[in-house]
Amino acid sequence: MEKTPQLCVMGGGLVGCLLSLYLAKQGYGVQVYERRPDLRRADLFSGRSINLALSDRGWRALETIGISEDIKKVAMPMYRRVMHDGQGNLSFQPYGQAGQAIYSVSRAGLNRALLNLAEAQPNISLNFEQQVLEVDVPTNRVTMLNVASQQEHQITPDVIFAADGAYSMVRLSLQKTDRFNFEQSYLNYGYKELTIPPAADGTWQLEKNALHIWPRGQYMMIALPNIDGSFTCTLFFPFEGEPSFKSLQTPAQVTSFFEEVFPDAVALMPELAQEFFENPTGSLVTVKCFPWQHKGKILLLGDAAHAIVPFYGQGMNAGFEDCTVLRGLLETHQNDWETIFNTFQEVRKPNTDAIADLAVYNFIEMRDKVADPRFLLQKKIEAKITGQYPDAWLPLYSMVTFSPDLPYAQALANGQRQEEIMRQLMGHIETEADYDKPQVQEFLKTHLSA
Amino acid sequence: MEKTPQLCVMGGGLVGCLLSLYLAKQGYGVQVYERRPDLRRADLFSGRSINLALSDRGWRALETIGISEDIKKVAMPMYRRVMHDGQGNLSFQPYGQAGQAIYSVSRAGLNRALLNLAEAQPNISLNFEQQVLEVDVPTNRVTMLNVASQQEHQITPDVIFAADGAYSMVRLSLQKTDRFNFEQSYLNYGYKELTIPPAADGTWQLEKNALHIWPRGQYMMIALPNIDGSFTCTLFFPFEGEPSFKSLQTPAQVTSFFEEVFPDAVALMPELAQEFFENPTGSLVTVKCFPWQHKGKILLLGDAAHAIVPFYGQGMNAGFEDCTVLRGLLETHQNDWETIFNTFQEVRKPNTDAIADLAVYNFIEMRDKVADPRFLLQKKIEAKITGQYPDAWLPLYSMVTFSPDLPYAQALANGQRQEEIMRQLMGHIETEADYDKPQVQEFLKTHLSA
Repeated sequence: MEKTPQLCVMGGGLVGCLLSLYLAKQGYGVQVYERRPDLRRADLFSGRSINLALSDRGWRALETIGISEDIKKVAMPMYRRVMHDGQGNLSFQPYGQAGQAIYSVSRAGLNRALLNLAEAQPNISLNFEQQVLEVDVPTNRVTMLNVASQQEHQITPDVIFAADGAYSMVRLSLQKTDRFNFEQSYLNYGYKELTIPPAADGTWQLEKNALHIWPRGQYMMIALPNIDGSFTCTLFFPFEGEPSFKSLQTPAQVTSFFEEVFPDAVALMPELAQEFFENPTGSLVTVKCFPWQHKGKILLLGDAAHAIVPFYGQGMNAGFEDCTVLRGLLETHQNDWETIFNTFQEVRKPNTDAIADLAVYNFIEMRDKVADPRFLLQKKIEAKITGQYPDAWLPLYSMVTFSPDLPYAQALANGQRQEEIMRQLMGHIETEADYDKPQVQEFLKTHLSA
Repeated sequence: MEKTPQLCVMGGGLVGCLLSLYLAKQGYGVQVYERRPDLRRADLFSGRSINLALSDRGWRALETIGISEDIKKVAMPMYRRVMHDGQGNLSFQPYGQAGQAIYSVSRAGLNRALLNLAEAQPNISLNFEQQVLEVDVPTNRVTMLNVASQQEHQITPDVIFAADGAYSMVRLSLQKTDRFNFEQSYLNYGYKELTIPPAADGTWQLEKNALHIWPRGQYMMIALPNIDGSFTCTLFFPFEGEPSFKSLQTPAQVTSFFEEVFPDAVALMPELAQEFFENPTGSLVTVKCFPWQHKGKILLLGDAAHAIVPFYGQGMNAGFEDCTVLRGLLETHQNDWETIFNTFQEVRKPNTDAIADLAVYNFIEMRDKVADPRFLLQKKIEAKITGQYPDAWLPLYSMVTFSPDLPYAQALANGQRQEEIMRQLMGHIETEADYDKPQVQEFLKTHLSA
């Protein structure tokens, strides 16, 4: 009988937990190492509610471990974008067909649920406050730091799964090996989380089943609903220039700026100036690298392999999709780690590159284009095309968000082709009614009929 | 009186030595730390002769420290490319005007000359076998390893100049700071150095004042002359596929392959099979990053800031040009390191990005295009254009190599414009004589007259 390989998963976040559950299901024993303390400990609750957008690729993964119904109960469906202009006037753009939504979920809540599932498995051990310092790649010997005691110790797992995030220490060790391609690139924008609390009666102060956007050209604010009646707002804002995080230096400047550009929001943000200076300014990084695996002994996945900016709401979904693909390969190739990992990286790399580029592009769309009446008209025309040619045309957003079987790279390629068709088509269109003009219909028939 | 800042230069290679001379000339005391032993120690001579192409940007720097004449005496001018086809037939392409050459120089010899100059300065101290392990960026505290004793110690210079190469440890520390953009990308090709020894009478077995190329489409070999009568050949070859480093596994396979594809060279390479397996296979990396400086306390330069592939022969020249630019800024801004470093990176970054991209492009030209008669015809036509319109048209290669006052980015932009003109022009040209056709002359007059 073969010796059971010792597997370890670095990172007890969303992807690390889901992966450990899949590995355990295949009969492996799994050690999970997480740098931070157990976030289920009540004393760690920070009071801030960071939420994520969960869509079909993510739900598909949660269904496999039987918690999608429980999570859906505490998730807020968002059926459309609500755009707020400078005077507080609203416009709307549905995300998909009737009933289709993306879901705002609490990152911490979801992580706790996954940790509980992992802990309930006899062949998964969770180890908190254990930080990877370095991996000696030729031997797979990992130097770990016990964060509480500050003692170092070493482990030598047979296989290391690195789900340790955008700043992965495992990846840093791989980076020093020969021919490891690596790129980390930052936007010149940071983000700041702010709060719209519930109304006095505990209800939401904005339309609750929507993602709110205040598009302002070179910057924007968004708000996602939480189940407690609050919204978490995120300001995406230049680090430097005018206006920027650097140019707003006093509470009075912040309040005055928000009153000028986000008047309908600022009325709902009593703690604005305090939060603005107390909450950290985050940065926005894209990480690309290759290869993701080393000799069947180390595999990068999730943000450690492909961190992306948040503007398509696909970071967690892409990480969960990694687990979905890996799960299939684990079943097909059993213990043949080199084949599993090589196939995994070949299949996934083009798709995670595609969603990385789409995410950067969507920032431009959200902060700028959704404020443009021509863009919104184009989206309405596109919805009509989808209605008329449902098999030939699905909007890019729907391909990414609501079509979990369509690889991201295919969605991107289809989207580029459609964009070119739309560009030509919009030359003939001034109003929604123009859609019915003969030359428009003729053009569509030519381009979209099989 | 202001305290004299303590400066250290990490890296005692070509760029580190030249920079330390410039800093010393400005009156600063400089500590130079080099990871390797002093390569002037005779027992370190490895017997292998690695050469570099020195061109006008490099010569300009060497003139400032008074050693250009001495170096020229031991340099081999190369006036043209000599292409060797599969039957050993030769074709030729001059590098520039009559008398213009790039120079093959010994890297070790040049480094020794620079070390001697640095050592002769009372305010420069050279420290060998001192490896940077880590920089604590907030405090500038550097942990160094004495490679001989394996003892660690710490230094805290006021300013760190990191000339520690493509795998810079200083840069690795900066990479962990927020918003540091970084990319390392490898070609799927490796390189192997091989030797054509001198003839029995000590003379060169190929035309000595030329750079020889055996272009073979997907791979190539080149040879640069050395002053001792030998040539150093470099095979640029895929790591994998057919043929590749992976596919050639035995001496018999290597010999048979070389006899088939490089028949005229293999006859001159008695140690081929032995060298092929004894010499290491190098990899080819491009490094881009930004920012290059941190708060006026750390500056990356040379390969540490912008490592490039060797196909334009500009790696050392670009590093020396960094020193030239920095030298001017040191004089203008005295001690105002933040201004010096900010200006430096703003001026240099677009230019080093340009030469990085040009270097990758030139690999395709060398391994593939120079074997194409149409390409060589185009080069002859281009020489005619330069002759007729000397103020309006300088070939890209000359702009990069022989025009040290023209920034690389400007050379690249001019080159792209010229490439488009050539593309249109070559539609009218079948032979060299067609250059005199009226429509060709008319076209040139329209596009190139001021």
